[in-house]
Amino acid sequence: MVPTFSVIGKKNSGKTTFIEKLVPELMRRGLRVGVLKHDVHGFEMDHEGKDTWRHTQAGACTVAIAGPGKMAVLKNLEEEMPLEAVVERFYWDVDMVVTEGYKRAGRYKIEITRTDILISEPSELMAVISDLPLEVEVPRYSPEDVAGVADFLLDNMNM
Amino acid sequence: MVPTFSVIGKKNSGKTTFIEKLVPELMRRGLRVGVLKHDVHGFEMDHEGKDTWRHTQAGACTVAIAGPGKMAVLKNLEEEMPLEAVVERFYWDVDMVVTEGYKRAGRYKIEITRTDILISEPSELMAVISDLPLEVEVPRYSPEDVAGVADFLLDNMNM
Repeated sequence: MVPTFSVIGKKNSGKTTFIEKLVPELMRRGLRVGVLKHDVHGFEMDHEGKDTWRHTQAGACTVAIAGPGKMAVLKNLEEEMPLEAVVERFYWDVDMVVTEGYKRAGRYKIEITRTDILISEPSELMAVISDLPLEVEVPRYSPEDVAGVADFLLDNMNM
Repeated sequence: MVPTFSVIGKKNSGKTTFIEKLVPELMRRGLRVGVLKHDVHGFEMDHEGKDTWRHTQAGACTVAIAGPGKMAVLKNLEEEMPLEAVVERFYWDVDMVVTEGYKRAGRYKIEITRTDILISEPSELMAVISDLPLEVEVPRYSPEDVAGVADFLLDNMNM
């Protein structure tokens, strides 16, 4: 399986912003990076009126559009795919997958927090991202220290 | 490989509208149907500002969002995936794939036209969709006769 780790944290803890900065930092180290967001509230992809949107409305359970440089796939699923299956099927061509969410799946997790309360068991975490001097037994990085986190991940993920 | 056929035709020949009607007709026959559009002009998927959009902007070569009932995957590709690879990787859970476009790939093709000019070799076609009395050696169906086309496909696609 492609090495995968999760950035977890409460709503508005800064997960997306942190990942947004971490991706180019990992790329600068020569990695092809994928991102996977765990959705719990429902999401809107595609644009009303587009051909793909019309095919979805027509009832097709998988709709895709594929061209020379990129492609997009929209799938309705009877049951959620486990994280491992998603990574295996869709991320075959990357070196590392960063997930946002997936609190209860995966092996490697870092939590980002703006408060002194963590939502994960300390035993599950490999690092904490916070500007507060939290008392944790894992390394703590400032949200600004994206380079430090990138180095830490490469050193500690058995890649 | 999941049985796959292409609806081909010139721009504005009615491909999307026809597929839009064909999908529910195939579903009424108990099939799970996927649709795959071949893109040559570039497409916009996702919405500016969404987390997935931000992750794509950050440079991630694969971005996905996955939830209980559906998921979406956006991939940048160094080279286009062949039709067969797309079907194998993304359509594992459907009974039939309808493609729009893919003039030069796949085994089964039907052409839809509003004029008396066909863009495909008659020898490549399994049927023509047209209201004009074209002189072709394959069956011809009116664009309204979606049920007839659905039956024809099920009879002729070795499913």
